[in-house]
Amino acid sequence: MKRTKIIDILQSKDYGTEVTVCGWVRTHRSSKAVDFIALNDGSTIKNVQVVVDPEKVDAELLKQVTTGACVKATGILVESPAQGQASEVQCQSLELLGACGADYPMQKKGQTFEYMRQHAHMRLRTNTFGAVMRIRHNMAMAIHTYFHEHGFYYFHTPLITASDCEGAGNMFQVTTKNLYDLKKDEQGKIIYDDDFFGEQTSLTVSGQLEGELGATALGAIYTFGPTFRAENSNTPRHLAEFWMIEPEIAFLDQEELMDLEEDFIKYCVRWALDNCKDDLEFLNKMIDKTLIERLEGVLKDSFVRLPYTEGINILQEAIKNGKKFEFPCNWGDDLASEHERYLVEEHFKKPVIMTDYPRAFKSFYMKQNQDTADGGSVGYKGAVAPGPTMQGTDVLFPQIGEIIGGSVREESYEKLMGEIERRQMDQTHLWWYIDTRRFGTCPHAGFGLGFERLILFVTGMQNIRDVIPFPRTPKSAEF
Amino acid sequence: MKRTKIIDILQSKDYGTEVTVCGWVRTHRSSKAVDFIALNDGSTIKNVQVVVDPEKVDAELLKQVTTGACVKATGILVESPAQGQASEVQCQSLELLGACGADYPMQKKGQTFEYMRQHAHMRLRTNTFGAVMRIRHNMAMAIHTYFHEHGFYYFHTPLITASDCEGAGNMFQVTTKNLYDLKKDEQGKIIYDDDFFGEQTSLTVSGQLEGELGATALGAIYTFGPTFRAENSNTPRHLAEFWMIEPEIAFLDQEELMDLEEDFIKYCVRWALDNCKDDLEFLNKMIDKTLIERLEGVLKDSFVRLPYTEGINILQEAIKNGKKFEFPCNWGDDLASEHERYLVEEHFKKPVIMTDYPRAFKSFYMKQNQDTADGGSVGYKGAVAPGPTMQGTDVLFPQIGEIIGGSVREESYEKLMGEIERRQMDQTHLWWYIDTRRFGTCPHAGFGLGFERLILFVTGMQNIRDVIPFPRTPKSAEF
Repeated sequence: MKRTKIIDILQSKDYGTEVTVCGWVRTHRSSKAVDFIALNDGSTIKNVQVVVDPEKVDAELLKQVTTGACVKATGILVESPAQGQASEVQCQSLELLGACGADYPMQKKGQTFEYMRQHAHMRLRTNTFGAVMRIRHNMAMAIHTYFHEHGFYYFHTPLITASDCEGAGNMFQVTTKNLYDLKKDEQGKIIYDDDFFGEQTSLTVSGQLEGELGATALGAIYTFGPTFRAENSNTPRHLAEFWMIEPEIAFLDQEELMDLEEDFIKYCVRWALDNCKDDLEFLNKMIDKTLIERLEGVLKDSFVRLPYTEGINILQEAIKNGKKFEFPCNWGDDLASEHERYLVEEHFKKPVIMTDYPRAFKSFYMKQNQDTADGGSVGYKGAVAPGPTMQGTDVLFPQIGEIIGGSVREESYEKLMGEIERRQMDQTHLWWYIDTRRFGTCPHAGFGLGFERLILFVTGMQNIRDVIPFPRTPKSAEF
Repeated sequence: MKRTKIIDILQSKDYGTEVTVCGWVRTHRSSKAVDFIALNDGSTIKNVQVVVDPEKVDAELLKQVTTGACVKATGILVESPAQGQASEVQCQSLELLGACGADYPMQKKGQTFEYMRQHAHMRLRTNTFGAVMRIRHNMAMAIHTYFHEHGFYYFHTPLITASDCEGAGNMFQVTTKNLYDLKKDEQGKIIYDDDFFGEQTSLTVSGQLEGELGATALGAIYTFGPTFRAENSNTPRHLAEFWMIEPEIAFLDQEELMDLEEDFIKYCVRWALDNCKDDLEFLNKMIDKTLIERLEGVLKDSFVRLPYTEGINILQEAIKNGKKFEFPCNWGDDLASEHERYLVEEHFKKPVIMTDYPRAFKSFYMKQNQDTADGGSVGYKGAVAPGPTMQGTDVLFPQIGEIIGGSVREESYEKLMGEIERRQMDQTHLWWYIDTRRFGTCPHAGFGLGFERLILFVTGMQNIRDVIPFPRTPKSAEF
């Protein structure tokens, strides 16, 4: 059933040739002399206008050409007299592929996003969700292309894991055990030797530790896969199942890591501006009128590179000058979104890469800065901090706050083990990770990007449930 | 720590310039006058030779430059006098980044693949697994590029699901329930209202049904994500966690689907031949001496398009002529790998796309061929079958057997519902799928490709556990 995609029809100048288009009816306007059918096939946000002479088409058929119906139209491509569209199709034959009842959930315009979520199987046919999904595709393609062109290898880390990466959030248990007949030992403890993997397993919260195995062999890898958090967070920022990108690179230092983070995220934003023009213009008009301006803003300047300690000083200074924050921000506190946004949106007015965080709230695997005799430490460009710090390098964005969380990794076996012991971590499932520091250890670094966070930023959408086709959230695994 | 990747060093002709290389020592040969260090950084299968004057380097340091150690060498790029390598580095300064103890698991050459699997965290540093992983990356990139260039959108279907796609294999249960205190009803049945999603959930066995939602909105989508089977199959062909690619396309008929399958898989194989030359040559030499010939063979001819009924006739004819098969192959039987390979490797000597399978062993969602009055059916190009058939279109490959499983989907609401009822399927979790046939239904088709099957074919590796970084199999979730 040869047909031309609407995206190609609208770019074609072959006026006078016969074309066949298929798609779903967005609107159907009738008059005595002529019918206008706006048809969309998902290839672009734009519709093609099919102009029908009602005399030439069966009246019963034409009645069934309602919003949501699927039709196939063959006709002549002509230059459109209407404003804002280059070409249209003068219909010669019309076929109804699929009628659409009046109970079509996307019948009415202007439904709420909550209504859309309840009909997530059909919301994909709307302009907004079509635009979001095409941009989502483009961001994935930008990511793969960026890493491929820079010599990174796509590395599939496992989803089912017997390790707990960093104890981040609660985990989903994965099991084939018969829950009606759980094998237990004498103390009543559940035994897992009859479970599928012979031990207790969960869904991963991060592929980073396995990613480090890849980087210390292949040089530079990236993961791009689903990640899970069983946190009972019913917020517009949390999903139980989301996609994450985690590049990891051997022989990279702190400065180069920040270069990479900045170059990578700018590449993605530039890709959106270059390749998703129609969809971005729609979202800029309908969802967020500052969207395109914000995207262009990210590309304009170099990101600020700011040690945490300096960031705290700026925030303290702001408080002195009358700025009110909900949460405290003394040295040693993890920054809240309000602090990050103050630095990015008000103080610097551009993205910030924050470095050298206090050890207390960062992960065990991060590279430790040199301690000083008085209990402080020396970090990026010799900046001194009043306590022990680690080479974390998080990228803070306007509106979103933290979009990338990165760090140089601690490559010293002694220092890493010291930290593992200081934190009294269970080493049972870490032996293979520790081995990388025993056998030819090397300086390396990496970062993590929550894919949906990126899509929120690039689309201007407000709720993370609206940038993934079928969100998984507490009490909701429909579709 | 600016350094040049070895892949770039080996292509450079800037002889006389100073370069810095980092990598892991593959071999270190010493003599009185000169030391040769073969260094690999994972960017290519090839090593760079670092030539060291032992007089100029600390003897204790040089002793630590053992297999597996990580070093940084700065020196002058020179044209190599040795055969088979264009350039080498005349070392001026050498730094040991990470020593490597004698207990390094990849110390010895020629270890078994089973040994390698037990040390999967270190096997990535070997030539074979480096080659496999770089090819794996390239195949992923080929897939994304192919679909992007053909107007498909990458579509993320959920992994945690409350539906059972096609009852394929056993599923892994996903839960946050406290297994020590399971809530039950009066009949002793476990209640899931307190589980994370408020109902029983599992890991998906296919994203196809959700993919159809995408295709009937965006026109053409593809999935590329992890998929799960809790089958207790300890074979070289099964993984509990594997990656699958599932494109789905609106307005595509059976012939066009076969065109797509053939074009797509040839594109991937061509990409490997064009972009993975060094790695393929290594595997062709060390793993499978017919590998490159077999890859080129796939590109040579058009695939055979063969109705199942004709395939059965050919197999029956072969049996008459003395061919012995282990399993029966009468009309209505699902073909075994031996039958598929006979058709591909012996009869046609090229890949086969088999079509129009008996309804009995194909899935409910496949498009039904026109039944005839005598209980038969009419399929591809008018071929007549003795029983009801469906428009399945599987691609059969040499050595591998089925590499792609595809079909046109049944777009008729009445026929689909008839099949769901005939099979007495539970419709509770299918309402959203059925809705696609109620609201603007359209002809559509798609296929599934097991990513690791493709990697097996393209690398010549024999065991599926050796083409994924960290395989998940019964009793094994290590790393």
